[in-house]
Amino acid sequence: MEPRSRGAAPGGVSVSAVLPAGGSGERLGGATPKQFCAVQGRPLVSYAVRAMERISWISDIIVVVSPENIETMKTIIEKYGHKRVTVVEGGITRHRSIFNGLKVFAENEFSSHLLQKPEVVIIHDAVRPFVEEDIVSKVVMAAKEHGAAGAIRPLVSTVIASAADGCLDHSLERARYRASEMPQAFLFDIIYEAYQQCTDYDLDYGTECLHLALKYCKTNAKLVEGTADLWKVTYKRDLYAAESIIKDNLSQQVCVITNVKETLAQVGFLLPESLKSQIKVEAISVSLSKNDSCLQNIISGQCYNFVCVNDKRWAIQETQELVDMLEKSNIPLLCPVVLILVHLDIPENNFFGIGMEDLTTIKKFARETKKKNILVYGLLIQYK
Amino acid sequence: MEPRSRGAAPGGVSVSAVLPAGGSGERLGGATPKQFCAVQGRPLVSYAVRAMERISWISDIIVVVSPENIETMKTIIEKYGHKRVTVVEGGITRHRSIFNGLKVFAENEFSSHLLQKPEVVIIHDAVRPFVEEDIVSKVVMAAKEHGAAGAIRPLVSTVIASAADGCLDHSLERARYRASEMPQAFLFDIIYEAYQQCTDYDLDYGTECLHLALKYCKTNAKLVEGTADLWKVTYKRDLYAAESIIKDNLSQQVCVITNVKETLAQVGFLLPESLKSQIKVEAISVSLSKNDSCLQNIISGQCYNFVCVNDKRWAIQETQELVDMLEKSNIPLLCPVVLILVHLDIPENNFFGIGMEDLTTIKKFARETKKKNILVYGLLIQYK
Repeated sequence: MEPRSRGAAPGGVSVSAVLPAGGSGERLGGATPKQFCAVQGRPLVSYAVRAMERISWISDIIVVVSPENIETMKTIIEKYGHKRVTVVEGGITRHRSIFNGLKVFAENEFSSHLLQKPEVVIIHDAVRPFVEEDIVSKVVMAAKEHGAAGAIRPLVSTVIASAADGCLDHSLERARYRASEMPQAFLFDIIYEAYQQCTDYDLDYGTECLHLALKYCKTNAKLVEGTADLWKVTYKRDLYAAESIIKDNLSQQVCVITNVKETLAQVGFLLPESLKSQIKVEAISVSLSKNDSCLQNIISGQCYNFVCVNDKRWAIQETQELVDMLEKSNIPLLCPVVLILVHLDIPENNFFGIGMEDLTTIKKFARETKKKNILVYGLLIQYK
Repeated sequence: MEPRSRGAAPGGVSVSAVLPAGGSGERLGGATPKQFCAVQGRPLVSYAVRAMERISWISDIIVVVSPENIETMKTIIEKYGHKRVTVVEGGITRHRSIFNGLKVFAENEFSSHLLQKPEVVIIHDAVRPFVEEDIVSKVVMAAKEHGAAGAIRPLVSTVIASAADGCLDHSLERARYRASEMPQAFLFDIIYEAYQQCTDYDLDYGTECLHLALKYCKTNAKLVEGTADLWKVTYKRDLYAAESIIKDNLSQQVCVITNVKETLAQVGFLLPESLKSQIKVEAISVSLSKNDSCLQNIISGQCYNFVCVNDKRWAIQETQELVDMLEKSNIPLLCPVVLILVHLDIPENNFFGIGMEDLTTIKKFARETKKKNILVYGLLIQYK
């Protein structure tokens, strides 16, 4: 198999990821398993896949789903343009699904061709959509050093043990314990051996990979303090929270498109810089060409808001192309997309000026796009 | 002190509640403690107070806040018309605040007059807004029998213990442990004795009331399986979730107001019945009078949507009074209020018919109320 050329992993190790997504979501209520529930029109699993996909040094992403959801998962991968993903059929429990996912690197049982065995394998839940590269990197480095590692968080509630009569037996001192979260990472050989050795009871009733590594390979996992965004979608209220967080993120992201040379107009650069201090700017200076892969990535990454800075005549045609791209991107536009056309009026630039005709065209264009939930605003800056 | 006449408590015991609301909310981020964060325009603590207040057999509700928030809390009580609430100054930790709250039933230290000591005291968090009477009642009954009781929930994550080197020491078998949640309830004498006996270390570093009852009074609390809505607002995402849940509840509640006699028009009764099968109907057959206390309760309970069924001439004047009441209720109307006027046109009823003039009046009225975020719709049913 052709080796992939990617960004360097922390410590120079080869890394792949397994995402168990076979759960039935019974705690959520409703018929759809939570990983397939739509959040802002996009299934939750797609956010988790994208979070992994954005990390350039992860080679393969294995998504393990129950047999009846394989086609659904393949459709999601196609629709959202996910790359480096292999779908694998899961088992009846979480541990069995993870084991199946690991097998594609070691046995020919679950895929037509064996994927290249990584030195470190990440295990992450399909229902934890907000994981950032920083924590994944820390967990991978700790796994490389200790053989196993996992993110932890402080306990939210006191943990108690009940006696047989349903009464309190004892409560745990909260400060001494932690909640085990995801991502976790392992030297591949360690976690694979643990799964090969563990009992049917472990596979059927266990949930904790760190426990298997300890029990069967005597590997004490390094615990890495995680961030608050590692939480898992478990209940319906968590879907509400995920939806609000994603909406918030969307409205705080903007892509700045500019063709203005710094020498010509410093203000064209000052504007993006000042935007950066206020909101998350995804990219500047990409072109408005249909085939710009950077622009395509931005759109598929659900950054929908644009500031287009130009010093030519009103770039209606190019903007029309951007709107076409947004529409054809096949991504549900649930929030209004804001498109701000900034025109720099620079005398040196042999400028023609804006006539009534241009203004009418712009207004008509804005009215049309508004029907598609795309709000176009114009801004004219006279710069002398 | 004059004894209060309320609904009967489960088991006929006298019951009061203490709500610690002194936390700083550091896990939430932001300057406002979470219990004072606005959810749909109303502070979180007000939802928890209301949840207790709705339970008629709870005599006194003690809200314990830090000294700097006493005025804020008093303003909230006044603004939202909370009854049976006493505000008490908290201590520097959760346990010290709860202890202060209990003292108003036993010592004159924190209030000008001693409140009547209840047989059972409920302890509930100010940041758990969705508690229902059913679970409170179960916990109170269990406390009456066992001396102490608390709601529990299954663990969401595996709980692990770390060794001194930051590595995994052992993981707990998830099925054997539970998360300790609220509400909890105690025989007053037991929890008060526990607080009187406990050490400064307990008061400063402990968090679990059930633990104190066990340690100092040898009382093994009865554990009561709670519902998923007992969760605690801890992180910012929980505020998002609370907001969505409250919005959902609001839009699914309706108050049906009808003056139609069953003998006159069966359809007037069929309509509310069929509504009931679809959404939560708060009340039927309350009157539109300004002084109807049932209607006042519905409005202060934030049920904002109304279906008014009548077989008289268009009851514009009465509807105008309802709109006035809504405006004067001093409750932020963030969601649009939907007001559906259903008019039954019944020939036997000596009906005058609707002329153009009536229609114009209705339309004008609807236009005016729309500016106030109150949407008025009319529905005419001809019934023969």
